[in-house]
Amino acid sequence: MNNLKKITVIGMGLLGASITLAVKRTFTGSKTLGYSHRKSTREKARQMGVADIVYDDLAESVSDSDLVILSTPICTFRDMFIEIAPFLKQGCIVTDVGSTKTLPHEWARETLPKVVQYVGSHPIAGSEKRGVEYARDDLFFGAKCIVTKVGSTDEQSLNLLAKFWTKLGSQVIVMTPRRHDRIFGRVSHLPHLLAVALVNASSPEDLVYAGKGFIDTSRIASGPANVWSDIFVTNPDHSVKGIDRIIAELRKLQGAIQSGKSKRIELLLKKANDRRADLIAYKIKNRELI
Amino acid sequence: MNNLKKITVIGMGLLGASITLAVKRTFTGSKTLGYSHRKSTREKARQMGVADIVYDDLAESVSDSDLVILSTPICTFRDMFIEIAPFLKQGCIVTDVGSTKTLPHEWARETLPKVVQYVGSHPIAGSEKRGVEYARDDLFFGAKCIVTKVGSTDEQSLNLLAKFWTKLGSQVIVMTPRRHDRIFGRVSHLPHLLAVALVNASSPEDLVYAGKGFIDTSRIASGPANVWSDIFVTNPDHSVKGIDRIIAELRKLQGAIQSGKSKRIELLLKKANDRRADLIAYKIKNRELI
Repeated sequence: MNNLKKITVIGMGLLGASITLAVKRTFTGSKTLGYSHRKSTREKARQMGVADIVYDDLAESVSDSDLVILSTPICTFRDMFIEIAPFLKQGCIVTDVGSTKTLPHEWARETLPKVVQYVGSHPIAGSEKRGVEYARDDLFFGAKCIVTKVGSTDEQSLNLLAKFWTKLGSQVIVMTPRRHDRIFGRVSHLPHLLAVALVNASSPEDLVYAGKGFIDTSRIASGPANVWSDIFVTNPDHSVKGIDRIIAELRKLQGAIQSGKSKRIELLLKKANDRRADLIAYKIKNRELI
Repeated sequence: MNNLKKITVIGMGLLGASITLAVKRTFTGSKTLGYSHRKSTREKARQMGVADIVYDDLAESVSDSDLVILSTPICTFRDMFIEIAPFLKQGCIVTDVGSTKTLPHEWARETLPKVVQYVGSHPIAGSEKRGVEYARDDLFFGAKCIVTKVGSTDEQSLNLLAKFWTKLGSQVIVMTPRRHDRIFGRVSHLPHLLAVALVNASSPEDLVYAGKGFIDTSRIASGPANVWSDIFVTNPDHSVKGIDRIIAELRKLQGAIQSGKSKRIELLLKKANDRRADLIAYKIKNRELI
């Protein structure tokens, strides 16, 4: 990546630190710069050597950078854009790895100078774990990465960013932020709400008896509350509609169980069997499940 | 297990064949006998050598047995009890591995001769996979196994059966079938319904974008439809009530998202974080997660 000599990641959590590690492994000609607002995180990041330089000062970390990647909770982006705006050099590409994309695009348009180019990113990779200590240089391997653009997005910057994620091992798909938020409201934000509802509806005394089924179904409910709260706040409509759709499906199952219609129950379960079998077959064929 | 010279398992699926394999490994003095109503399963079971003898005839498979274990879908139990009743020898213990326990106890009382002893079992082990080919001799290791009794249950048989599961590596807990069905309605049947609702509410076009979160949250929706339909039919009240409780939790989240109350959302997510952290800590301490 000759055009990306210096790459800055703001926020050295699991995702951010995995990006710098992956860049270090992949692009020998690029320098990785990191920043975190927490001193303890900066120290850990330095100890672990996840980036070439970890800065104490945000402005310094971005001032000579060709690509700046925000990897902090979504609701910090607007203030972060305002804070870094005066220090970005001409032609710099700014992106973020937030799980919703409509508002980040709006905030970038409102706050970033015209001489820099914003493109959205959402790598579909991560874990319920958090923190620099869980960073992995292969986190993006085989994972999809959505790159988002609107009418005014600079094509050259879009292509360069798509190439960046591709080189890190991701399968890049370009779409509008609106389409992104609709799809991920359904396949990512909704399962999270279900997992949370399941855990909150269960009493600690009963949970002693929980088996592997409960543990897997609820895994994502262990995701960081502040990060996920930002996701729901910035994609409210699809979350609200998704809950209505799930409730409708639950009522179908409840009605069939209440009236003892075993064939009807079995049909609903079989539908889920088949649909999930197709999903798993696709993911295996597409090498997303290793 | 000197008192259990011959052990019969009816139904050679993942669970049934795992029992015979585990017995073969653990009790050198016991003979394992198997039966399946499907010819193809019997042939596979013979090829794989999961039991010492696999019978073509149900009556023959149980006629000299000290312990008979039903490992077929729950709704077959009543007919199965009636069919094997004339061939069971005096003092034989009959159990099953069904995921609901109230109706199996009732059916046993109605149909089994007084000279045999019924005790219920529910090993909390399994997988969304099905079939003899997935059988494992360590399936019960570290897993809880609920053994159920009512007022009329024979104490000696109960103790012997508890010892049997303990020797296979399980942590045995004794309770009434009623308590069992209430607890497992909450921690097992309810997550299954959620997973099914999630998959059925998702369109195949969107699922292309599903990540690991969706895949884990929906895993158990791949469980066999006929087996799970029997579970819901035989534990309807707790399933129906559980759905109401989940819907109430979903409405709380929906309300907070709709009104943009990010602190309220974060509190609900944090509650799930904490409760699940306690669950995982307990499971690790209790060596149920390996």
